[in-house]
Amino acid sequence: MSFNTFGKIFRFTTWGESHGPAIGCIVDGCPPNINIKEQDIQSELNKRKPGQSKFTSQRKEDDKVQILSGIFEGKTTGTPISLIIYNKDMRSRDYETIKNKFRPGHADFTYLKKYGIRDYRGGGRQSARETASRVAAGAIAKKVLENKIGKKFKVIGAVTQLGILGCDIKKWNDKEIRKNSFFCPDKSIVKLWKKYLLSIRKSGSSCGAIIQVRARGLPIGLGAPIYSKLDMDIASAMMSINAVKGVNIGSGMNSAQLTGEQNSDEISQKGKKIKFNSNNAGGILGGISTGQEIIVSFAVKPTSSILKSRKTIDKFGKNTSISVKGRHDPCVGIRAVPVGEAMLNCVLLDHYLMNKAQCS
Amino acid sequence: MSFNTFGKIFRFTTWGESHGPAIGCIVDGCPPNINIKEQDIQSELNKRKPGQSKFTSQRKEDDKVQILSGIFEGKTTGTPISLIIYNKDMRSRDYETIKNKFRPGHADFTYLKKYGIRDYRGGGRQSARETASRVAAGAIAKKVLENKIGKKFKVIGAVTQLGILGCDIKKWNDKEIRKNSFFCPDKSIVKLWKKYLLSIRKSGSSCGAIIQVRARGLPIGLGAPIYSKLDMDIASAMMSINAVKGVNIGSGMNSAQLTGEQNSDEISQKGKKIKFNSNNAGGILGGISTGQEIIVSFAVKPTSSILKSRKTIDKFGKNTSISVKGRHDPCVGIRAVPVGEAMLNCVLLDHYLMNKAQCS
Amino acid sequence: MSFNTFGKIFRFTTWGESHGPAIGCIVDGCPPNINIKEQDIQSELNKRKPGQSKFTSQRKEDDKVQILSGIFEGKTTGTPISLIIYNKDMRSRDYETIKNKFRPGHADFTYLKKYGIRDYRGGGRQSARETASRVAAGAIAKKVLENKIGKKFKVIGAVTQLGILGCDIKKWNDKEIRKNSFFCPDKSIVKLWKKYLLSIRKSGSSCGAIIQVRARGLPIGLGAPIYSKLDMDIASAMMSINAVKGVNIGSGMNSAQLTGEQNSDEISQKGKKIKFNSNNAGGILGGISTGQEIIVSFAVKPTSSILKSRKTIDKFGKNTSISVKGRHDPCVGIRAVPVGEAMLNCVLLDHYLMNKAQCS
Amino acid sequence: MSFNTFGKIFRFTTWGESHGPAIGCIVDGCPPNINIKEQDIQSELNKRKPGQSKFTSQRKEDDKVQILSGIFEGKTTGTPISLIIYNKDMRSRDYETIKNKFRPGHADFTYLKKYGIRDYRGGGRQSARETASRVAAGAIAKKVLENKIGKKFKVIGAVTQLGILGCDIKKWNDKEIRKNSFFCPDKSIVKLWKKYLLSIRKSGSSCGAIIQVRARGLPIGLGAPIYSKLDMDIASAMMSINAVKGVNIGSGMNSAQLTGEQNSDEISQKGKKIKFNSNNAGGILGGISTGQEIIVSFAVKPTSSILKSRKTIDKFGKNTSISVKGRHDPCVGIRAVPVGEAMLNCVLLDHYLMNKAQCS
Repeated sequence: MSFNTFGKIFRFTTWGESHGPAIGCIVDGCPPNINIKEQDIQSELNKRKPGQSKFTSQRKEDDKVQILSGIFEGKTTGTPISLIIYNKDMRSRDYETIKNKFRPGHADFTYLKKYGIRDYRGGGRQSARETASRVAAGAIAKKVLENKIGKKFKVIGAVTQLGILGCDIKKWNDKEIRKNSFFCPDKSIVKLWKKYLLSIRKSGSSCGAIIQVRARGLPIGLGAPIYSKLDMDIASAMMSINAVKGVNIGSGMNSAQLTGEQNSDEISQKGKKIKFNSNNAGGILGGISTGQEIIVSFAVKPTSSILKSRKTIDKFGKNTSISVKGRHDPCVGIRAVPVGEAMLNCVLLDHYLMNKAQCS
Repeated sequence: MSFNTFGKIFRFTTWGESHGPAIGCIVDGCPPNINIKEQDIQSELNKRKPGQSKFTSQRKEDDKVQILSGIFEGKTTGTPISLIIYNKDMRSRDYETIKNKFRPGHADFTYLKKYGIRDYRGGGRQSARETASRVAAGAIAKKVLENKIGKKFKVIGAVTQLGILGCDIKKWNDKEIRKNSFFCPDKSIVKLWKKYLLSIRKSGSSCGAIIQVRARGLPIGLGAPIYSKLDMDIASAMMSINAVKGVNIGSGMNSAQLTGEQNSDEISQKGKKIKFNSNNAGGILGGISTGQEIIVSFAVKPTSSILKSRKTIDKFGKNTSISVKGRHDPCVGIRAVPVGEAMLNCVLLDHYLMNKAQCS
Repeated sequence: MSFNTFGKIFRFTTWGESHGPAIGCIVDGCPPNINIKEQDIQSELNKRKPGQSKFTSQRKEDDKVQILSGIFEGKTTGTPISLIIYNKDMRSRDYETIKNKFRPGHADFTYLKKYGIRDYRGGGRQSARETASRVAAGAIAKKVLENKIGKKFKVIGAVTQLGILGCDIKKWNDKEIRKNSFFCPDKSIVKLWKKYLLSIRKSGSSCGAIIQVRARGLPIGLGAPIYSKLDMDIASAMMSINAVKGVNIGSGMNSAQLTGEQNSDEISQKGKKIKFNSNNAGGILGGISTGQEIIVSFAVKPTSSILKSRKTIDKFGKNTSISVKGRHDPCVGIRAVPVGEAMLNCVLLDHYLMNKAQCS
Repeated sequence: MSFNTFGKIFRFTTWGESHGPAIGCIVDGCPPNINIKEQDIQSELNKRKPGQSKFTSQRKEDDKVQILSGIFEGKTTGTPISLIIYNKDMRSRDYETIKNKFRPGHADFTYLKKYGIRDYRGGGRQSARETASRVAAGAIAKKVLENKIGKKFKVIGAVTQLGILGCDIKKWNDKEIRKNSFFCPDKSIVKLWKKYLLSIRKSGSSCGAIIQVRARGLPIGLGAPIYSKLDMDIASAMMSINAVKGVNIGSGMNSAQLTGEQNSDEISQKGKKIKFNSNNAGGILGGISTGQEIIVSFAVKPTSSILKSRKTIDKFGKNTSISVKGRHDPCVGIRAVPVGEAMLNCVLLDHYLMNKAQCS
């Protein structure tokens, strides 16, 4: 049981509330002798932090991470790595609204009903602020994988659908992703997305998104049959991210519409090189990596905190309505990209280490 | 780590290969003093077994379950329940084809590469035969939940899309589901599906499907924040089923296309009764059950064992092709319905018991 | 949580009641490509089975093990190994006595109070019969370790104290252990033990024992700091055996009486060979193996089923007394030797695999 | 797998090195709505901190704990509780000695061999400083148990043997324990212990100790058969404490020397009150609490850091010798008392919550 811990061998435990003094995580099971600097973690955190464009929340969160343990003279020692991020810019705002009213689409209702108490300030524990800890843990996983597998290893994510607007997945270009405010991999659609999201924001509404994360350069054999399938753990990882409602591996939900011959990826070999002629499987067969690119997509629902008025009840059982003011992302999906990358890095390292235990 | 175990408190461990002497599972963490008879398990297994119509495999598997432990004088005792199903109808067929060639879409390739050995007979451990054990475990979970929550509790699944043909989800009718060979909830589409699947079968091909499973009558409060989210564990459960490539909770992948006001389910109260005006959330907010119906959908890819010839390689690295003969389901998704029900029952009981530990 | 599962990577789950149809276990996480035959397991079980001398229970239990899965063409495949032992010689005896009365020293009282139900026949789940499953799992662990570490690896246990009679530990001789009915390592004391135990048996009483298990040929580095210490897991393993009340590592409880200079094992090096000048640590420092012999001792309390009358209550709360007839071991500690060996083999393999995950 | 996490439902994860910026822990699985103040934790920490008498280390460690999450308006919310203790008084001492030489009896050798790197400053992660985190977690467990079970619940530990000097266990007096510098429960021996320990210290040596911890007021039914036995988890907990080499439950190792009739605790009933006429079982039968006092003893080996010169090798393989200067406890066992109490509190709460999951 692990309410706040993710992973099996490479494990991280997150803690902290949105408006408490700090948030953080403990990364356990990290192999020794890996070079890790605060800057390695910070640079990943910077991708996620709000206030970077008008398309994300205007909160100023420095998200300055500190390493408190587990690194000695620049190297991991095999002991737990404790990371802390002190909370800043916690506006002394009036929480009275969300204190007593349940915001539709938020966990206010379920948390209070389950626990009989909750820290409502800024969403408390249910705030997506927790994902900063995931990004920090993922930065460490990434460094370990690069060290173990080599530079051919790469995890990269992008927004492939913004609300009702998809992009052309065939135009995916790694380099484009960091050049726009949407993590969009298709240069040709960026302008349209900009227009669309501005209009969404202006109207006091929000929209959802689909994020795709890919991993390249992996060995064959990560994952294990039945209840440690790689795709099972990836699904679990992505569905644990705030606001995620669906996960696809490869062709995902769409595979229902394919025939057997359309779906199953043919295999051929040239010299030592094994090639799959397509990748509907998303790089995973029978729960085990094929050596192809791992392809995962997940849907992030639209931000539930919107200006538009919504009917709800308060904690006393009275019917009322709510309009959530504040500095909210018009599309939280955008900032989910580094989170998805981080979770995939963590799952992959976990299975990389597990594979050592199973088959070495 | 749990390669072959699912669950946290209510846990089951499955074992067995398709053509070994038997398959089975151990159900651990089952509460004491619950009435369970072999027949309770058998009747669930009967829903899944092949050979029931021309739309499923023509293998004759009795799937006769025996209880070997954990039940005393008709009641659970709190000790592990060992269930065994002896394998029958293991045709002395020629396995030479699949022994050396990797069937596209199957785990043949990854298993052999990972482990350096595999029992290829009938797919061995990677065979969907393993899901019989899940159905058996799910039958026990169902009995416990009915005992603890009462008869208002119900889990029911259906096929909502067969290949390219969807059904009208608004016409969902529980009673229709058991009346046709497709677990189809919409009477009006059954004839068309029949025609379609016959043509698929005749052409030596196969098709995918989408299964939806619903749970009713649950209390508020199942699930837990962050890494024990109810939807996370459901996604994990469904993705662990053979051939599943995507999982949706409520509006799932489609929620990406909604706006905030379309997506977030408004709440109202009348007397003591809390009502959500829609259910895009699929009954789960912040990883915790809202008391609404839980709605899960998952996609099963088309059967990879097809008559149509496919390019592949053999284990010696030679390019070749394969055409899989035998008694295969033209749509394995159909028989995934009782498996999805079973997995949902197991996850729900697991969280029901966890909730007792957390909040009582 | 794992009520009936032991281990982290190499895990086994046991099931079965003393007088149910069968007992057995699932061994999960076993590496692939290890040669294992039923006979490898059977020969370990034979060490444990009762009826081998007049110093153990006169029950005839064949304890014939069958492998139901996980082995293909004589080799492990990485899938779960299911082992079953059908119960025989379940005398149709009158259980009325133990059905209603709580035998002092037994778990009758606590099981019934906790679960409200129990299978009382022959002790049900609480019977030491469960340890046959452990011995079977241990036989597999032993085979894997011999394969991975080589023939220098050896785990061997002995009874070092029988009731009030110790043996001379300095006279420990591996070869003597199998030559007598007590697993006694010191030839010179065997006669006296024989006399003593016969008198105990004649008087309708029983006695306790201390078992010592040693492991040789291990690499440095098994175990991990803090909560995966090797000694912590060994203590856990041994304390989980029925009737065990104390566990020592190396000098154990006696280390309290030593001074710092008496206790800490000095180290010296000659060429590449590191030598500890003593082994108070029992081969473990800071939870990690030093490469020395691992030395574990545990105390088994005297058999609680004795002919002598003992005061107790029945389940209706009435004061009464009980005298347990039947075929009981005058010293259950003797048959605990192969169980202790099995548990140590399992813990060591588990840590061997974990170490691969941590440091390779 | 949980290298730095202890527990199943109530879990804590510790982190930090002796001379890093801070140490701390995350307490997860704590029930909501429990009043907890920093002072509740601080007062337990104060029992453990060094420098309180001349019989413990003269380091000045304030061990000032801060709560960073999980408590809202004085109450637990069910989210993880993050505790931090900043390190102070980290003398800029010369670590060159222990940097390269392996101190006999310490984990220097095994850590470096396993991980290839270690933070040697003050023992790094292997320092008993980690136990401060355990005491903090235990303080929370204690508050929860008092809330759930009531004020009759009490865990109390004492030193029952100091080196070669035992105390009269029958004279155990709770009130005496806090009145002397040894946590000694027997007033009559205190003077002698004082003399003895002063002479040990003067000679530059150290001695071991036996600690006994008792828990009262517990319900029947904590624990579970086979691999979640209460005594198994207690043994695991105690053996995880630095320098512990042996664990006894009730009569422990001594039970080997008893006969069946001496050992098994007779039961009688008067009205509703069930009474055991003795407590060799230490309050646990078949792994489940009987309702009697839980009695655990464990041995702490003598401090390995002593002034007396010891032979050892350095990390370059050269034979040498070492004499450890500094502010070391002449008997680390003394400060292990609050640690043992804390660990028992944690195990008991864990099983209390597990019992809710199993049997409610």
